[in-house]
Amino acid sequence: MKNLTRSEAAQILLAHDNYTIITHRRPDGDTIGSSAVLCMGLRQLGKHAHILENLEITPKYAHLHKGLTKPAAEEGDFIVTVDVASPGMLPEACKALAFDLRIDHHGSATSFTPVELVEPEAAACGEIVFGVLMEMDAELDIPMANALYTAVSTDTGCFRYANTTANTFSVAAACAKAGAEVFNINQALFETNSLARLKVQSYMLQNARFLQEGKVAICPLPKAVEQECGAGEDDLDNISGFPRTIEGVKLAVTIREEGTDRVKMSVRAVPGQDASALCAKFGGGGHKGAAGASMDMTMDEAVEAVIAQLPVIM
Amino acid sequence: MKNLTRSEAAQILLAHDNYTIITHRRPDGDTIGSSAVLCMGLRQLGKHAHILENLEITPKYAHLHKGLTKPAAEEGDFIVTVDVASPGMLPEACKALAFDLRIDHHGSATSFTPVELVEPEAAACGEIVFGVLMEMDAELDIPMANALYTAVSTDTGCFRYANTTANTFSVAAACAKAGAEVFNINQALFETNSLARLKVQSYMLQNARFLQEGKVAICPLPKAVEQECGAGEDDLDNISGFPRTIEGVKLAVTIREEGTDRVKMSVRAVPGQDASALCAKFGGGGHKGAAGASMDMTMDEAVEAVIAQLPVIM
Repeated sequence: MKNLTRSEAAQILLAHDNYTIITHRRPDGDTIGSSAVLCMGLRQLGKHAHILENLEITPKYAHLHKGLTKPAAEEGDFIVTVDVASPGMLPEACKALAFDLRIDHHGSATSFTPVELVEPEAAACGEIVFGVLMEMDAELDIPMANALYTAVSTDTGCFRYANTTANTFSVAAACAKAGAEVFNINQALFETNSLARLKVQSYMLQNARFLQEGKVAICPLPKAVEQECGAGEDDLDNISGFPRTIEGVKLAVTIREEGTDRVKMSVRAVPGQDASALCAKFGGGGHKGAAGASMDMTMDEAVEAVIAQLPVIM
Repeated sequence: MKNLTRSEAAQILLAHDNYTIITHRRPDGDTIGSSAVLCMGLRQLGKHAHILENLEITPKYAHLHKGLTKPAAEEGDFIVTVDVASPGMLPEACKALAFDLRIDHHGSATSFTPVELVEPEAAACGEIVFGVLMEMDAELDIPMANALYTAVSTDTGCFRYANTTANTFSVAAACAKAGAEVFNINQALFETNSLARLKVQSYMLQNARFLQEGKVAICPLPKAVEQECGAGEDDLDNISGFPRTIEGVKLAVTIREEGTDRVKMSVRAVPGQDASALCAKFGGGGHKGAAGASMDMTMDEAVEAVIAQLPVIM
C-alpha cells in the first residue's frame, strides 16, 4: 500500500475512466457529499463516473446522489472508496470488489487498496476530494459546491468540532463563492430537530443523574422511551452529544439499551477530560473527547457501574 | 459624510495616533471582538489605542477587553466607533464626544461621523476591521485571532445565519491559521445551554399547541414556569427561536407574560412565511423572519387570539 500525494492521486484519476465510487455503511454527509462532488467533478472532466447505490442512504442526503448512482459496478471499472476507514465499513453488496484507490481522512484506518490518499489532519474527506479535484483543474459549480459544503459542514458539526481547521474554513469559503446554498443547507441539517429527538432530549434532561456538582451527567435512555417518542436512528444521530451541551457538564454519559441485559454507553467529554479512559474500564475505547463501550448488564446495573468507576472531575 | 474605502480608512488610521474605540450599548460579540482586534492591531503598529470601557459588557466577552480599556476619552483622541448603527446605540457616557470615524456593517444606519467605512454586505463588523488592518499590514496574533473569530462567529450564529458569505469563511480561515482557539470559543459560545434554558425548552415542547399538521407551533411560556426553571433573561436569550427548530414548523409563536393581563408574543418564520404580517394584526412589527407584538390580554386569551388570526400555511 502506498500513500499518494494529492497530485499523484489526480494523475491516476486523470489516467483512467469508468469510475465507480463507493461510500460507507450507515452513510453520513461526508461520504455522501464527497462521493457526489468527486462523481460530478470527474464527469465535468469528461470521464464516465457513477456512485455505487448505497441502500442505507437517508432522506436527509438522498438528493445529493440523484442522477449519479448505478446499482452495480461493471467489469473494468476503476473503483474509488471515499471516507471508508476499513473493509468492515464497506456495504455488503460491494465486499467482493477489487478496490483501486481509497481517499480517506481516518488515520487509524485499515488499508485495503493498492494505493491510497489518506490525510488524517483533514476534518472531512470532502476537503481531500476537493484538493484532488483542484489539482485536476475541475471547477466547483453549484451542485458540486452544495455537496462539498454538506461534506465539510456535517463532519465538523457546522464548524464547531475540534477537528475544524483553517483549511475547513477555506473549503467552505470556496463553496460559498461557488454559490453553495449555505443558509438553506445549515437550516436543514443543523437548525432543525425532529419532534421525536426533542422529546428524547426532554426525557434525558428530566431523567439525568447529575453528579459531582453537575460536572457529570448520566442519562439512561431505555428502548421503550425511544419508541414512545417515535425516535428512529436518524432522530438519535449523535444524541449522546446532547448532555454535554448542558452548562457545567464536563463528562456526559448516555446509556442506551441494545438488547436484553445489554447496553451501550457513549461518553462525551470537554477538553481536559478523558472519555476513553472511562470506557476502557468497560472494555470500550475511543478518543478523549468521545468514546463508547458495550456492557452486558441491565440499564440500572450500568448506571451504578459507571458511577462506581467515575473519575473525580476537577 | 463620506463613505471611505478600506484603503482610505487605513490611511486615516495610519496618519493619526491616540485612539479611543467606542462599542455599542448592550454589547455583543461583534462590537467587543471588533474593538479588541482593532485596538490590538493599532498597538501592534506602534499606535496608542484604548477602548472606552463599556459598563454593560457581559462575563461572556469581558476577557476580550482585558488590558485594552480606559474609563474616559482624552482631549485630542481620535475616536472610532465599531458596529454602532446609530447615535441611539452609543453608551450614555460617550454621547457628548466628537466622533471621527465610524466602522460598521449596518446598511440602514444613521451617520454621525464626518467619514465612515460602512459595508452592509459584511456579516460582521469584524470582517471590515480585519480588512482595514490587512491594508495597514498588521498581522493577526493569537489574541487578535481569538477576538476576530468571536466577532465573526457570533454575528453569524457560528456561520449558520443567512448573512454568512465566502468572506466570512475566509476571515474565519485566517483566524484559525493564526491560531485562534476555534473549538474552545465555539464550545463556550454555541455548544452550551444552561440547565434552566433546557428546562424551559422542555416545558415549551410539552405544552406546545401544534396546528395545521405541525406547520404552526404556539408555545405559551408563563412567568411562573420561567421562575420554576430558574431562568433569567440571559437563559432566555432568543428562546423564541427554539420552536422554529422543530422539524416541520414553519411559523413559531412564543408567548411570554410581561405582567398582569399583558403578554408579548415573538414570532419566528422560515423563508417563505411572514412573521411580521401576523404581528401587525396585534399592533406589532418586525421582519418576515422574526417579529413581535405586545398584547393586553391573558395568556389563554392571547393563544386563542393568535389561533384566530393565523394564516393558512402552504
